[in-house]
Amino acid sequence: MSLISKKHETDENIIWHNQNVTKEYRIKLLTQKPCIIWFTGLSGSGKSTIANAVEKKLYELNCKTYLLDGDNVRHGLNKDLGFSELDRIENIRRIGEVSKLFIDSGLIVLTAFISPFKSDRQIAKSLVKYDEFIEVFIDTPLEICESRDPKGLYKKARDGAIKNFTGISSPYEEPKEPQIHIKTDKYSIDGCSQLVVDYLIKHGYIKGDIDYAI
Amino acid sequence: MSLISKKHETDENIIWHNQNVTKEYRIKLLTQKPCIIWFTGLSGSGKSTIANAVEKKLYELNCKTYLLDGDNVRHGLNKDLGFSELDRIENIRRIGEVSKLFIDSGLIVLTAFISPFKSDRQIAKSLVKYDEFIEVFIDTPLEICESRDPKGLYKKARDGAIKNFTGISSPYEEPKEPQIHIKTDKYSIDGCSQLVVDYLIKHGYIKGDIDYAI
Repeated sequence: MSLISKKHETDENIIWHNQNVTKEYRIKLLTQKPCIIWFTGLSGSGKSTIANAVEKKLYELNCKTYLLDGDNVRHGLNKDLGFSELDRIENIRRIGEVSKLFIDSGLIVLTAFISPFKSDRQIAKSLVKYDEFIEVFIDTPLEICESRDPKGLYKKARDGAIKNFTGISSPYEEPKEPQIHIKTDKYSIDGCSQLVVDYLIKHGYIKGDIDYAI
Repeated sequence: MSLISKKHETDENIIWHNQNVTKEYRIKLLTQKPCIIWFTGLSGSGKSTIANAVEKKLYELNCKTYLLDGDNVRHGLNKDLGFSELDRIENIRRIGEVSKLFIDSGLIVLTAFISPFKSDRQIAKSLVKYDEFIEVFIDTPLEICESRDPKGLYKKARDGAIKNFTGISSPYEEPKEPQIHIKTDKYSIDGCSQLVVDYLIKHGYIKGDIDYAI
């Protein structure tokens, strides 16, 4: 076992020397393979709802997770950023960099941001190893998102009160090859979230039993 | 138990409803009280060495930690920042905000930055609860730091090749009331790090046995 061979003693209780606590050690302690689960989709598509549902299921499976979303990022780390093109890119860059730190810490990090541009998602993806980035496309038709309009944003965008609103006055570039493509009109919230959990189990990120009923 | 009472069922295996995974839940899963251990001190004072030694001891105690330092922050999240006064403040602000996210995730986060100005440390401190910020002053006399000069920075500062170098051409504002004040000439590295671990045990952040030999 490589982790043990780095110690000067084979006794697990002896402190090792000349070796800091690394990602490898943290992974061993947390017993999971860290990754970013990057949810992308239109406003109102259900990203946050499904991400939260996934996080609950992971908690039940004893997984250590953290969810980054507008609530904890835009009001804190990125509160100095607006919605210009440059600020939008910087917003996603910082989310990617913070996600990378969380992966390094051994956690499974979930992000729920519209992230409409392929180039921006590519920046985040490029920061980590290829198998540490799991893109989840929450595919909900625009008309359904707009009919939900929980924050009244679509109405404001249609009225012209909000400029560059994704889906109305700014494009949403659909992921071409997401690791997980969820057509939300085909499943319940529970079903959608189970698809993600099953992917993680199947690909060895976490331990658990796949729900074949989905 | 408040965590259980939020569930609709008392059976631990039943998924709760209408309740996202919160900091409280993560603390329960990780079985530790998250905090920032903020190391401050001159360049060459031993901040990183002691922080790494603390992290090893915490790992042995099954604690889940993450260390933020120049290596993983300046080359990633903060790579767009230089060393102007504004950039220096922004550097510490982002480190504080990221530390806050890590606390929210339930981890114990260690930071090892010179952070010479009281006002900057105050920004980081102000972001979290009062008992979530543990300031550790690594107190090593300037002449010892300068004699070590592992990166040759003091020499460059004396030669004028580096401007605004802490301790030479820019002040280091000593913490007046740090939670832990370590005079490094009085202890070994092991002893210094044990002082921090003992503080965490004594104040209920982690479980373990205090080493009264220190």
